[in-house]
Amino acid sequence: MAGSSFGTIFKITTWGESHGDGIGVVVDGCPAGIPLSLEQVQAYLNRRKPGQTRYSTPRKENDNVVIRSGLFEGHTTGTSILMAVYNETQRSADYSEIAGYYRPGHADFTYDAKYGFRDYRGGGRSSGRETIGRVAAGALAGAFLKELGITVTAYTKSIGPIQASPSSLTTLITERDASPLFMPGKEASDQAEEYLQGTMKEFDSAGGIIECIISGMPSGIGDPVFEKLDANLAKAIFSIGAVKGVEIGAGFSCATATGSKNNDAILGVKNGHAVKATNHAGGILGGISDGSDIILRAAIKPTPSIFKEQQTIRRDGSPVSVQIKGRHDPVIVPRAVVVVEAMAALVLADALLVNMGARMDRIREFYNFSREK
Amino acid sequence: MAGSSFGTIFKITTWGESHGDGIGVVVDGCPAGIPLSLEQVQAYLNRRKPGQTRYSTPRKENDNVVIRSGLFEGHTTGTSILMAVYNETQRSADYSEIAGYYRPGHADFTYDAKYGFRDYRGGGRSSGRETIGRVAAGALAGAFLKELGITVTAYTKSIGPIQASPSSLTTLITERDASPLFMPGKEASDQAEEYLQGTMKEFDSAGGIIECIISGMPSGIGDPVFEKLDANLAKAIFSIGAVKGVEIGAGFSCATATGSKNNDAILGVKNGHAVKATNHAGGILGGISDGSDIILRAAIKPTPSIFKEQQTIRRDGSPVSVQIKGRHDPVIVPRAVVVVEAMAALVLADALLVNMGARMDRIREFYNFSREK
Amino acid sequence: MAGSSFGTIFKITTWGESHGDGIGVVVDGCPAGIPLSLEQVQAYLNRRKPGQTRYSTPRKENDNVVIRSGLFEGHTTGTSILMAVYNETQRSADYSEIAGYYRPGHADFTYDAKYGFRDYRGGGRSSGRETIGRVAAGALAGAFLKELGITVTAYTKSIGPIQASPSSLTTLITERDASPLFMPGKEASDQAEEYLQGTMKEFDSAGGIIECIISGMPSGIGDPVFEKLDANLAKAIFSIGAVKGVEIGAGFSCATATGSKNNDAILGVKNGHAVKATNHAGGILGGISDGSDIILRAAIKPTPSIFKEQQTIRRDGSPVSVQIKGRHDPVIVPRAVVVVEAMAALVLADALLVNMGARMDRIREFYNFSREK
Amino acid sequence: MAGSSFGTIFKITTWGESHGDGIGVVVDGCPAGIPLSLEQVQAYLNRRKPGQTRYSTPRKENDNVVIRSGLFEGHTTGTSILMAVYNETQRSADYSEIAGYYRPGHADFTYDAKYGFRDYRGGGRSSGRETIGRVAAGALAGAFLKELGITVTAYTKSIGPIQASPSSLTTLITERDASPLFMPGKEASDQAEEYLQGTMKEFDSAGGIIECIISGMPSGIGDPVFEKLDANLAKAIFSIGAVKGVEIGAGFSCATATGSKNNDAILGVKNGHAVKATNHAGGILGGISDGSDIILRAAIKPTPSIFKEQQTIRRDGSPVSVQIKGRHDPVIVPRAVVVVEAMAALVLADALLVNMGARMDRIREFYNFSREK
Repeated sequence: MAGSSFGTIFKITTWGESHGDGIGVVVDGCPAGIPLSLEQVQAYLNRRKPGQTRYSTPRKENDNVVIRSGLFEGHTTGTSILMAVYNETQRSADYSEIAGYYRPGHADFTYDAKYGFRDYRGGGRSSGRETIGRVAAGALAGAFLKELGITVTAYTKSIGPIQASPSSLTTLITERDASPLFMPGKEASDQAEEYLQGTMKEFDSAGGIIECIISGMPSGIGDPVFEKLDANLAKAIFSIGAVKGVEIGAGFSCATATGSKNNDAILGVKNGHAVKATNHAGGILGGISDGSDIILRAAIKPTPSIFKEQQTIRRDGSPVSVQIKGRHDPVIVPRAVVVVEAMAALVLADALLVNMGARMDRIREFYNFSREK
Repeated sequence: MAGSSFGTIFKITTWGESHGDGIGVVVDGCPAGIPLSLEQVQAYLNRRKPGQTRYSTPRKENDNVVIRSGLFEGHTTGTSILMAVYNETQRSADYSEIAGYYRPGHADFTYDAKYGFRDYRGGGRSSGRETIGRVAAGALAGAFLKELGITVTAYTKSIGPIQASPSSLTTLITERDASPLFMPGKEASDQAEEYLQGTMKEFDSAGGIIECIISGMPSGIGDPVFEKLDANLAKAIFSIGAVKGVEIGAGFSCATATGSKNNDAILGVKNGHAVKATNHAGGILGGISDGSDIILRAAIKPTPSIFKEQQTIRRDGSPVSVQIKGRHDPVIVPRAVVVVEAMAALVLADALLVNMGARMDRIREFYNFSREK
Repeated sequence: MAGSSFGTIFKITTWGESHGDGIGVVVDGCPAGIPLSLEQVQAYLNRRKPGQTRYSTPRKENDNVVIRSGLFEGHTTGTSILMAVYNETQRSADYSEIAGYYRPGHADFTYDAKYGFRDYRGGGRSSGRETIGRVAAGALAGAFLKELGITVTAYTKSIGPIQASPSSLTTLITERDASPLFMPGKEASDQAEEYLQGTMKEFDSAGGIIECIISGMPSGIGDPVFEKLDANLAKAIFSIGAVKGVEIGAGFSCATATGSKNNDAILGVKNGHAVKATNHAGGILGGISDGSDIILRAAIKPTPSIFKEQQTIRRDGSPVSVQIKGRHDPVIVPRAVVVVEAMAALVLADALLVNMGARMDRIREFYNFSREK
Repeated sequence: MAGSSFGTIFKITTWGESHGDGIGVVVDGCPAGIPLSLEQVQAYLNRRKPGQTRYSTPRKENDNVVIRSGLFEGHTTGTSILMAVYNETQRSADYSEIAGYYRPGHADFTYDAKYGFRDYRGGGRSSGRETIGRVAAGALAGAFLKELGITVTAYTKSIGPIQASPSSLTTLITERDASPLFMPGKEASDQAEEYLQGTMKEFDSAGGIIECIISGMPSGIGDPVFEKLDANLAKAIFSIGAVKGVEIGAGFSCATATGSKNNDAILGVKNGHAVKATNHAGGILGGISDGSDIILRAAIKPTPSIFKEQQTIRRDGSPVSVQIKGRHDPVIVPRAVVVVEAMAALVLADALLVNMGARMDRIREFYNFSREK
């Protein structure tokens, strides 16, 4: 199936494998007239680029983006935008070994089951490198949201048992970007580094949680029933390789709460937004934004590529004991932060465009048609 | 936007409000030749019907289904199938009071923000009654899956702090159906009843967790990147009104695990399925099924309609203190069990159909075309 | 496949067979706040109702529509709208004969080839009666367009060799509705009646051409490449059972014209519309409306159900000579006029909604966000 | 809107402008295991390449294709395939003049109306050069169809008043490829050349008709109601820039025929195909293939870029008399032949994949599940 497209009006289609020529995205349905520079997109990509800290794979890739269409005189034209990153180091690798067996925790077995064979060079489309196209498109969605005063901010909420301790929403980005793990709060970040070093010594890997906060969202965005804003956010975040859980607002903790504790008292309205005593709903009720911050969290599994010995099978079904070679991220969380931001931004951009047709009075106004004419 | 449709090939479109004429669904893209009786669909609907225990709203509705198209001589024809339940008691209610304010925890404010007005008669499309169409369609998707030996079983995993204790997968359905809360294990079910009675005495409500287990799924189903099987399951489950979190397999617990603990060792292959030492992946790797049981959990928030006094605002923004009248489910979880089953079944049916075009060798065989011809 | 849905934002899904319980449509994505009465929808349906003249099948059907959801206090709510017509006379018919062979010119053979069996009661989903859902939805799309000052007018352009002779666009509807064949110009209409009577005497049937004129369309509507406005109109019109050709503006005649003759000189701009010396383009250039009238024509084949003896085969492949019994429309064209209008209206409504996201400046304005904030 | 994607399962997304960096396509949902070489794709592209005869623009472009993803060891992998052609001569052109006015017959005015500005360098996305992505994707769809024994053959049916005279279907391709106009029959081709030379002398351009014949199609492909095979073919062909009309089988001529003449008598069944006395239906009944050849025709308008003086307006609305400079194809038809083939092939590939889920008995067989298990 055509699984590489996402979105209804603001739609992206990604292509490329970890060890092919390159990786990229076509963004289609992006409104005309958004200012966009290569630097803006590159800044997003740099946040997921490997080799920047000791906690990410030292594979050398500059991940320089090119934009091949859809821009004219520094603005989007309204037509489809191709962005690409060409792989630089794909040819040197030796994959003959992993070609022969199925790595535990990877998609090797399932791709083979689906397609009858697989591109064994480093994961093909199931590689984390596939997210380059998402991030490039997310930079554009972010530029769109910025035009409407909406910000999307994700950060490392936890690594293993260590929880982040951001001081406040205003300093969140500064604190996050001061940490090699994109984890706000120096103490927490230091502890997480320590935890990771322990994990690495044991040839093992770690997981964690990413939180994403969306501010400035108008109320009334999202659709009833199947196109609920939270349902689309959940799909978007779950489509990122290593995600095993998504929650909105109070999330799983609401399962043990009572209604009187979980309901958010409404205190008033400000700029069309509900002012609430609490935000357990995470900014969404009935699938539609209420104007409060939208808050979601994603559980990221530990990197499946570890150096410890593991049990698996060869393509012919015979058992084999393997130790993954090469060097891999001991934790995926920090590099996935910008991917979560990108996917959330894409959902919001699409929902905002789709929502413009919700009310006849505003449509008439948009088309400048009064009934008195 | 058209938010009432779900699916690519096996597609459903729902319609109807809690207090309108009726509620239903059009199922389109269902293969021809599936045996289907009214009784099969009714059996699913009866599992979500109100008024069956003291833990659900005593509103009297028989929820009798009619099928208006797409069946011929007891089999699906391959064309669109309309199923409807006509409301019986909608006219008696008096909604003049709730029309005037926004109920906390409900979609009243957000619908008003989106559409400029709302159908205030009991929630309109945001009512739990909207799920009737999903369940009727789910009965059909279940019939489809049964033809391929696939079963979908959901049950109440927890209510408030009380956890279910199913003895085994084989007795799960029997134990579940013996409980008024669809909660397997007599002890757990009794404790949950006790907990609920306490909650009701305090004019409050409870939440919980639903687990869903899919057995018999072939390996290789699901698509890379955005149409991952888990991403579509997450969207499907999150589109159910009260869901605030979804996890697959080990879910959020994998955030604190290490790679060596979280990876599932592969021991062999049986009938094309991976035989694994554990199933932390929950049956899906890289968005594609591996043939193990698919396991997901959904967090359900406490019923927002409670009798306790709550703070909110009127449509004009002025504050008001309210006590919701009428009688409502003190917990949504038991009636939502079949809704989770239905949504999961719909995702699987669609994925199985979409997947048929994955490999050229099988397509040639399907169209009975050999290259030697 | 799910073939019963049409549209991206303003989406319809139809259901029902000619000889089942009923026929109808779910309209989803219709903006909230459009005034709609049952009478408006009925008026559209009455234009395709059988039994009104001697040139349509005398099957007695009142085709009374009911609306089951999506309306509140006389306005659309923004959620899905179910409209249905219940069949009244389906039970009396005897289809045992046509069940045994494939009628020439009908979809009997192809449905059987696709599904392995068919609902032989009068054509099932391939019956002209399937268009009831389209027309009901078209009434709603028409109400939407009216809010923006856009009109869609179709009429019988020709029947067999007889061409309509409308005096002017202003009197077109009056002249059309004065003719039992919806063919403007008394002389042409009379001649066409005469032609039809001749055809009927010979136990034969006639075809013709329907023209549709869309006035008041803003310029700039439609999308480049695959979602061209004319491409979507062509698909919409071609999806009507008996259509074998569609052309826009000068259509097939441009194949023999030269560029200098076919190009429309642009004389000026008025209210954002191109003022052109001619309109060979039919109001669309590059798939996008230029503000001139959009003009399209559809070729409708002669009714395939004729009383003349015809050669065909039984389900087992053996040859048989048949004479179709019952009574059928000797020409489909007049009753298809409103179906063409409906399908065109649906395309335009959708295109107008989709187009709202084309330009960032207008999106900012819509969301009331200035950069200076 | 996202107008650059086409298809449901076999889906393409195109990008690129005539005078940007390059032009291309992402093909997604293509089955795994189809052998594909660069040469195969190049052969298709060479058929639309400019500068090959005196009847096409002498702009020098080699249109060399590169494939960046989705191929592994000479076969499709089942994941998305990026194909690109980089522009070689885009930088030299001077578009300052045409930037200032709207060319008659082009999309200049409408793009400006839609987006508020336009990429005036040679038409941007409305340029004929946009079809490169379609043709590259069509080569792949053609390779897929070949695996099932299906061929798609288009040719120049007429140029201006000159009609092609192919001797037979078997020699059609040879005769076509012997003509610089892809017009079978030496006499007709010579006359058409003469006609074109006359047109060029008058600084004018010509239109024509392309016919496309699809052989080997299984019966039962296509879907009822809106996803009729002919409706999707019509949309696909109408989405090609210069097309103003599409007809299937007898097409517009059936408007003047009678039912007894237009119906195709069915004589028998051979290999699951209907054997018919005639093929006025053009291989499709009720939107579903009957196994006969599918026959469609497209009317192509004369090239709008002509050297004759024309009347138009500047961006500010003031009138201006213009003569288009540069050199342009005096007729689009020959180069559009392969574009028609490509679009038809894409529709068929998609319909074949989508159709696999039509019948439960075949789905069970596909998944190798018998009820007796």
